[in-house]
Amino acid sequence: MTQLELARAGNISNVMKAVAAQEHISEDELCSKIVSGQVALPSNKNRKASLACAIGQGLRTKVNANLGTSRDYPEIDKELEKLDAAIQAGADAVMDLSTGGDLQTIRTEILSRSTVPVGTVTIYEAAVNAVAHEHSIVDMTAKDMLDAFERHAREGVDFQTIHCGVTRAVIDTLDRFPRICDIVSRGGSFMAEWIRYNKKENPFYEHFDEILAIAREHDVTLSLGDGLRPGALADAMDGAQIHELIVLGELVLRSREAGVQVIVEGPGHVPLDQVPAQVRTAKELCKGAPLYLLGPLVTDVAPGHDHLVAAIGGAVAAAAGADFLCYVTPAEHLGLPSAEDVKEGVIASRIAAHAADIAKGVPGAADWDRRFAELRRTRDWKQQLDMCIDPETARRRREAGPPDDDHVCSMCGDFCAFKIADEGKDYRERSATERKG
Amino acid sequence: MTQLELARAGNISNVMKAVAAQEHISEDELCSKIVSGQVALPSNKNRKASLACAIGQGLRTKVNANLGTSRDYPEIDKELEKLDAAIQAGADAVMDLSTGGDLQTIRTEILSRSTVPVGTVTIYEAAVNAVAHEHSIVDMTAKDMLDAFERHAREGVDFQTIHCGVTRAVIDTLDRFPRICDIVSRGGSFMAEWIRYNKKENPFYEHFDEILAIAREHDVTLSLGDGLRPGALADAMDGAQIHELIVLGELVLRSREAGVQVIVEGPGHVPLDQVPAQVRTAKELCKGAPLYLLGPLVTDVAPGHDHLVAAIGGAVAAAAGADFLCYVTPAEHLGLPSAEDVKEGVIASRIAAHAADIAKGVPGAADWDRRFAELRRTRDWKQQLDMCIDPETARRRREAGPPDDDHVCSMCGDFCAFKIADEGKDYRERSATERKG
Repeated sequence: MTQLELARAGNISNVMKAVAAQEHISEDELCSKIVSGQVALPSNKNRKASLACAIGQGLRTKVNANLGTSRDYPEIDKELEKLDAAIQAGADAVMDLSTGGDLQTIRTEILSRSTVPVGTVTIYEAAVNAVAHEHSIVDMTAKDMLDAFERHAREGVDFQTIHCGVTRAVIDTLDRFPRICDIVSRGGSFMAEWIRYNKKENPFYEHFDEILAIAREHDVTLSLGDGLRPGALADAMDGAQIHELIVLGELVLRSREAGVQVIVEGPGHVPLDQVPAQVRTAKELCKGAPLYLLGPLVTDVAPGHDHLVAAIGGAVAAAAGADFLCYVTPAEHLGLPSAEDVKEGVIASRIAAHAADIAKGVPGAADWDRRFAELRRTRDWKQQLDMCIDPETARRRREAGPPDDDHVCSMCGDFCAFKIADEGKDYRERSATERKG
Repeated sequence: MTQLELARAGNISNVMKAVAAQEHISEDELCSKIVSGQVALPSNKNRKASLACAIGQGLRTKVNANLGTSRDYPEIDKELEKLDAAIQAGADAVMDLSTGGDLQTIRTEILSRSTVPVGTVTIYEAAVNAVAHEHSIVDMTAKDMLDAFERHAREGVDFQTIHCGVTRAVIDTLDRFPRICDIVSRGGSFMAEWIRYNKKENPFYEHFDEILAIAREHDVTLSLGDGLRPGALADAMDGAQIHELIVLGELVLRSREAGVQVIVEGPGHVPLDQVPAQVRTAKELCKGAPLYLLGPLVTDVAPGHDHLVAAIGGAVAAAAGADFLCYVTPAEHLGLPSAEDVKEGVIASRIAAHAADIAKGVPGAADWDRRFAELRRTRDWKQQLDMCIDPETARRRREAGPPDDDHVCSMCGDFCAFKIADEGKDYRERSATERKG
């Protein structure tokens, strides 16, 4: 049985128990959220990640880190180094998006090494193989796509992105609303080109029942990809994007009916004032399924700082109800990230997620800040540096401009507001005692 | 006459003309915003900054960079290097917050070198001098504070932060609502200790008419400091903070009556969901005066990344109506920033400001993104790297992981969605032509 079927049967699994404890909610509450489809618990039967990651309404907002080789940089070792960096920085899940080198070996290595759930994008492998053997993406067959899905499922992949919403009808809608950036999802562009060339329906959509049967057998959580997500602020929220969401909403219902866990992916590039509407629209059209966002990026013009741009959009989106943030690294739009970029990306998304969790009242979120503020007030530098979200960076920066006096920082020195308050209080108390004496 | 008095007389000054052109609004509209007090145009008569900076409703959100020595790091050269870095990165204004070394010389150097408006915090110099000569902040006299204000005004400082809202009554309110972090504003803590020790009223409040007379003479814009701003999420929006805002609202009206331009400062550390209410409350209580925020920081736990934390809060605040963002650098809460930190801080705040300007419909803001998205779609890398918000960083990052093919990036390589779409279109068009032929 899948985690969804177990929950329906009132059977609390070990992974559910672990999650309920982590999330400070009761096992019953978690169970009923899984039953309703508001929460997913990616957990392939063939591989148990040591760290559970439940995604959805009322839970801590989770962060995913994308890894994976490209044709220009196919080295496996570098991706494993990034995997370690992502987990060390606190990623809740990782995705292997490799498109270069030996994909099977890379995936196997990541699956065996990762302590957190692992996701993949099914069509990448099908497309890369088609290019390697047949010279073009459009030569993929429906069987290639379904075989890739089953192979990943058997190997233990916990969640798979399938671009099942890019249907012929959705592409017709796209053609009726001109965009600046057309399709920016890689998987979405593969699927659209395949459909346009072959003049056939999307195999993931057409064979969705077969996908569901495989997913149910291995308990793969489906991540319904947003192939038509906007890739520019000017393209956000158009007919094609919303048409695809309508299709995904239908597939959410079919997944639930089949006992298969499902989450829905979202944009992308979105103006800041439109972010809450995007989240609400996706949640409504997709029947409350957990929402997994890439960004949103609230400006197009800041390559080199897109982790920060995504943190702005991600914080607002998660506060508005998004459940799962795919990190964006400072290398986004410029090249493949380094391990250092991966760390920066994870920390940026964790900050956004945490700020949102405080805003939406996730149990326990504000306590961290309250305890931390007490350490700041008492000028307990050692514990501040231990308890902050990125101790390594905080230590390095404090050491870069050390103060003369260890009890303050080099910004204010003796003029530290806390020190002044403490000394003022001492002084006034002494004066009062002397007056009484 | 001050810019406010000129506007009231219907006299469009040269600096107003320059601003109207920059902001894509008519001179009449700008003039009426200055008359209503919704816009301030810091422009000391004794020093004309070559770059004008108007702050307020309907205009581009502006960014300020704080500079200044500390007792541990009193070197002037380093601060001038930071001034250059701030202006190079696009800061609209700078403040000299020096508390170490020869304050007079540092200020003079910054005033003579800066091409943008310069602000100071009056009480810092009074406090540092008191400590140097009398051994304690509480030994400052009212005359020391007023003299410092006048000295800065004569030297050409465009805007001065005065902590005039930290009155005896406001401190009484503070004592009735316990906080975790008490007072975190340096100037606020100086003023509070002075009042508590001397049992006298705040000289900036008591002698506000004298301040106004000096400000009017030189056209110094008053920046009414928020000495009681929250320094922890748990302390946000309490009686003391709002009591001070009520006092500032009264002083806004008195400033306008005297023909003196005025802006109001705001927090600080604020939970993300409370940011719009903070902005609205300050705008209402302070009669629509331009709002200048330090942050807001939407979590306490991320020292080392507070530029990013402030970008999240600043974007949401500016979208909700804040007009002027004081940058926060990655060194915040840890030490005095380096020139590199200054650049990071300015860029982070500019991204936040720009995302907000798109959201609130500032004229011209969205056009930059639209043009940029077109360059991205056509894979015009040269112009993308020239036109982005931080060309230096974007170039460095692209060069760190160069692609084999210059027309894509090393993330997707040949699987670039744009390349696939272009090639697919070519291919399908050729096929169609051949079929026709």
